[in-house]
Amino acid sequence: MTDSSSQPLQTVSDLGEEQIIRRFAGSGSDLPAGITGIGDDCAVTEGVGGQKQLIGTDLLIEDIHFRSEWTSYRDLGHKALAVNLSDIAAMGGRPESFFLSLALPGSMPVTRLDGFRKGLMELARKYEVPLLGGDTTRSPDAFMISVMITGRADPEHLKLRNGARNGDILCVTGPLGDSAAGLSILEDPEKYSRLSEDHRNQLLQQHFRPEPAVREGRWLGKQSAVHAMIDLSDGLLNDARHLAGESRCRITIAMEQLPLSADFEAFGKIERTPEQLRELAAAGGEDYHLLLTVSQAQYSTVARQFEQRFGRALHAVGTVEPGPPEVRTLRNGSPVEIQQHFQHFNRP
Amino acid sequence: MTDSSSQPLQTVSDLGEEQIIRRFAGSGSDLPAGITGIGDDCAVTEGVGGQKQLIGTDLLIEDIHFRSEWTSYRDLGHKALAVNLSDIAAMGGRPESFFLSLALPGSMPVTRLDGFRKGLMELARKYEVPLLGGDTTRSPDAFMISVMITGRADPEHLKLRNGARNGDILCVTGPLGDSAAGLSILEDPEKYSRLSEDHRNQLLQQHFRPEPAVREGRWLGKQSAVHAMIDLSDGLLNDARHLAGESRCRITIAMEQLPLSADFEAFGKIERTPEQLRELAAAGGEDYHLLLTVSQAQYSTVARQFEQRFGRALHAVGTVEPGPPEVRTLRNGSPVEIQQHFQHFNRP
Repeated sequence: MTDSSSQPLQTVSDLGEEQIIRRFAGSGSDLPAGITGIGDDCAVTEGVGGQKQLIGTDLLIEDIHFRSEWTSYRDLGHKALAVNLSDIAAMGGRPESFFLSLALPGSMPVTRLDGFRKGLMELARKYEVPLLGGDTTRSPDAFMISVMITGRADPEHLKLRNGARNGDILCVTGPLGDSAAGLSILEDPEKYSRLSEDHRNQLLQQHFRPEPAVREGRWLGKQSAVHAMIDLSDGLLNDARHLAGESRCRITIAMEQLPLSADFEAFGKIERTPEQLRELAAAGGEDYHLLLTVSQAQYSTVARQFEQRFGRALHAVGTVEPGPPEVRTLRNGSPVEIQQHFQHFNRP
Repeated sequence: MTDSSSQPLQTVSDLGEEQIIRRFAGSGSDLPAGITGIGDDCAVTEGVGGQKQLIGTDLLIEDIHFRSEWTSYRDLGHKALAVNLSDIAAMGGRPESFFLSLALPGSMPVTRLDGFRKGLMELARKYEVPLLGGDTTRSPDAFMISVMITGRADPEHLKLRNGARNGDILCVTGPLGDSAAGLSILEDPEKYSRLSEDHRNQLLQQHFRPEPAVREGRWLGKQSAVHAMIDLSDGLLNDARHLAGESRCRITIAMEQLPLSADFEAFGKIERTPEQLRELAAAGGEDYHLLLTVSQAQYSTVARQFEQRFGRALHAVGTVEPGPPEVRTLRNGSPVEIQQHFQHFNRP
């Protein structure tokens, strides 16, 4: 357990999330045929009646993912399930059930626990996903929430991260940056006191109570023109990088095409240039819309049907090309470097 | 979020684990047919090819379930998976895959993380359960491990907690109390300094590296004479109480029949009467053997076959009778009250 070399002791904070996952991913048994493990929004196994079973899991930790003094526990319960529902949506699947494990500080008021339960169960009822089990224990300090979700998809409707093809159009299902703007407001409320209450509330709502794209994901799963999909949890740039890496292709994003909400534009008028605002939209995490690639030939058809069905646009924000697995960003056709990258793991 | 009544604010520490689970269990959607949720070692859903799918999950939290200064991280990795494998064994099932979520303090040495991974993956390879996914995040303080396991069982081989029948014999698959003795040694090493190194190591081994009864559970699952099963995580008395509650019957335990290891008997010679030692065996948790009820008529046949197959006894420790759902303890035929009850949740 002690490091006797002259090197300084390496700690977990020296590693990124991907380095940690790679350490575990490489050391297991080989997977049976038909099973996909680490590396997508969910694992895929054989399911009932020739379908595929999807299993995903997400942790929410106090003072890492949320702060007790900022969030209502009802919103937190909503979000704990929403981020997991979003993982199923990103595979083109239908959610089926979930499991909940809680580590609870003894000092937590029961009213908070009940608020958490209420927000969680409201969303569970909305999407008809029963709670099937879990574990409960005392926590020495932080409130920790581990949710595991199961779902299913027809094999031909399953969308993975590795399916993007050269020539595809990169699309998002909703405006970008609202959640990051909500977080900025929480971090420095005075700076944004000029923002109207309506705009502020909308942005905070997107941050605290993201609506998972469950119906959109199932519908997009059924479209054969959709080749690859992921949910926007880590931010457009990071999640596009996951698609590029798994699909072995280059993705180019046109910064001026990013869809922005009116609330986000109003937020941007305070202390940000239009360019800086779009950088936040590209880098900010936790929007929980879907990011997907669609065959170029069928993009306009799919986008029209999407809009008819869901009453909002399927926004084209970039293209898939042959090239090294990387993400390029262009501003009005010229390459531009975006510095700020959202990573839960390395946040202070 | 604030309590305006004149009552003192109720906190989570005022609730037991079962009260918390009951709060959540009652508030969800109704379960579809063929699905069993909260209330057994695993949830049961429809699986591939007419089989049942089993899903279980267990949390391990630093300073609640383990102490970093006492445990080797390789042992901790072993235990994190072992307690979940034990849940599948308790249903008569076969483990299939697992998911791992970690909240890691930034200051954790990478050598510890690697030790954890090694112990976990050694056990995963032994039972051929691949790691299919999970989540990794920073923890503000405690190291937290959430493992979720899947398995399967033929419907006719599934053993639930609610199957015990009047007249059944209550059995355990191994000696009781070794893990609790190991914990006592850790808590007060000086008191037990007279114990031989061999005995001490055996008891600590049972505490740190319990061997899940995977093969025993599968074999017992196939025996139609076995009516109900649970794993010994909370201690014989608590787990028998779970069986009695779910099966709506009374369970009587004969204290003098509890199987004790030679290591545990040697441990008991230090500052404990034989009666106190048996009370610790009955109340101490985390032995991770199986507790089951077997038809009286077939007990001797099943016990003989078990011994032939596994090289150790299937110990009869009590009986199932009509009566209120409770556990009675007898010492040489006379009722005796056992005070000490193991509960993870209420441990300091």
